[in-house]
Amino acid sequence: MTGPPLAGKLAGDMSISGFEHVTIVGVGLLGGSAGLAMKAADPSVRIAGVGRRQSSLDEALHVGAIDTAHLDPAEPVGESDLVILATPVQAFAPILGQIADHLADGAVVTDVGSTKASVVAQAESIVGPERFVGSHPMAGSEQKGPAFSRADLFEGATCILTPSERTPGELVNRMETLWQALRMRTVRMAPAEHDKALAKVSHLPHAVACLLMLLPDLSDLEVSATGLRDTTRLASGDPEMWRDIFLTNADAVLAAAEGLADLLNEFRDLVDDRDAEGLRTFLASAKIRRDSTIAQSLADRRIAME
Amino acid sequence: MTGPPLAGKLAGDMSISGFEHVTIVGVGLLGGSAGLAMKAADPSVRIAGVGRRQSSLDEALHVGAIDTAHLDPAEPVGESDLVILATPVQAFAPILGQIADHLADGAVVTDVGSTKASVVAQAESIVGPERFVGSHPMAGSEQKGPAFSRADLFEGATCILTPSERTPGELVNRMETLWQALRMRTVRMAPAEHDKALAKVSHLPHAVACLLMLLPDLSDLEVSATGLRDTTRLASGDPEMWRDIFLTNADAVLAAAEGLADLLNEFRDLVDDRDAEGLRTFLASAKIRRDSTIAQSLADRRIAME
Repeated sequence: MTGPPLAGKLAGDMSISGFEHVTIVGVGLLGGSAGLAMKAADPSVRIAGVGRRQSSLDEALHVGAIDTAHLDPAEPVGESDLVILATPVQAFAPILGQIADHLADGAVVTDVGSTKASVVAQAESIVGPERFVGSHPMAGSEQKGPAFSRADLFEGATCILTPSERTPGELVNRMETLWQALRMRTVRMAPAEHDKALAKVSHLPHAVACLLMLLPDLSDLEVSATGLRDTTRLASGDPEMWRDIFLTNADAVLAAAEGLADLLNEFRDLVDDRDAEGLRTFLASAKIRRDSTIAQSLADRRIAME
Repeated sequence: MTGPPLAGKLAGDMSISGFEHVTIVGVGLLGGSAGLAMKAADPSVRIAGVGRRQSSLDEALHVGAIDTAHLDPAEPVGESDLVILATPVQAFAPILGQIADHLADGAVVTDVGSTKASVVAQAESIVGPERFVGSHPMAGSEQKGPAFSRADLFEGATCILTPSERTPGELVNRMETLWQALRMRTVRMAPAEHDKALAKVSHLPHAVACLLMLLPDLSDLEVSATGLRDTTRLASGDPEMWRDIFLTNADAVLAAAEGLADLLNEFRDLVDDRDAEGLRTFLASAKIRRDSTIAQSLADRRIAME
């Protein structure tokens, strides 16, 4: 009649899917925060950090996100049971090529990239589908670099896992448990489905934030207020990271942009026709949709960038 | 060698341009907050509130935003030296028609509407250019109604005054001093210039927030995050208020929408061409522009809607 002892329950909550030695390639904000979050969940885990610059590695060591620092990704992976790719997406393929022959038996690989179809296809062809499952933890910040790493960066945010038809179910389960141990809500989507949805809810909105920022004359910005500031917040994101997102999800972004162009034309017609009832209906449907969905589910105030 | 006594300086700061009896027509969030802010700046001022519903007037009385409540705008204006129109823009003309013959000698009229060219032209023709100067205090909130009124709603925000060529300079100065007494930064623009700038930095961004909210399928919203939430915040605004803004600033909004459509086509070409350098330049120029302007000048976190 007695449940499991509380200590056991807490220990269970703190497990990170049995991973004991993790290599994180790329010790920026996401990689550094993954290190801190895993150590918070399981203080016994050992984290090897890989970076291109010694200064970033030193920062990551300094904040306690990693235990050892390496410039060559092939160096630590031999003793790791998990490898997390946290560099820009375009660097994944060369890194996977460097580490493929050095991975330990049974070691698994994931990533934190924002686009998935091309990433998953490449990773499966380089290290094999039995080893790889794509992850997209939707957390971040406009701040870059390991110095801004936070153990709670992922808390309450969503992580999308993108198994392909060839990914072993057990591997997906294990990775899902890992992200949940970092306090994330997890969702599963096929890679292409992920990319189509994210093009609409993240990638195109980012482009539009940039377009809205470039539309006014500089003098017009003198009378801008909080509306434009918030609508364009995404435009302060990292240009290189977002260039890679558009390049690796070009088709879905183009389809979403075509959809937006059509909607923009419908709006222009409503204004051109001075269609009061049509405008009210358009505005009310957007308000109802927002108020009943994301305004509620994301009520917590967090400055974050997906 | 001694300056003015501190008490005198403070009393000077607290003046509201010599206005002693103010009629506020429309006791919603803006009207109610104007009442509270004027009383905070000058406790001796008397505020008459006009509303269509007794319940709103009772709320405004309850929060102390007004001293007397009236359903007929003609009733209190005879003893007022200032009338502030704070209803939806489309109601301005009929209200001005109701009060024109009852205004006291020397009484002045302003408004808090978000569009100005048509408002100023109408107001000048109804009550005369010697009495009217348009104001656009860019403050607000997604919350509606007198119950949410705040004495500090305007603090730190910008108020655009829109004198025409026929507005007496002395009247503009006096109204500017009033808004500054409510802790606002003031800017002067011609009405048409105001409407063109606001179409780009406020009205079109509002429409785009709605379009981005309507673009995804509902299932896509399951994986939306803070980026979409912030980019679409404006879509939660009041549909009737924004319908009126688009109807009363249609030409400038259409011109801005055409500019955005052109920029969207340029972006689509960059993606279609997989133009890595062009995409990076586009993203970097938007980031530089935002980081060097509105990200800095609006650093204070305020949930507000212009």
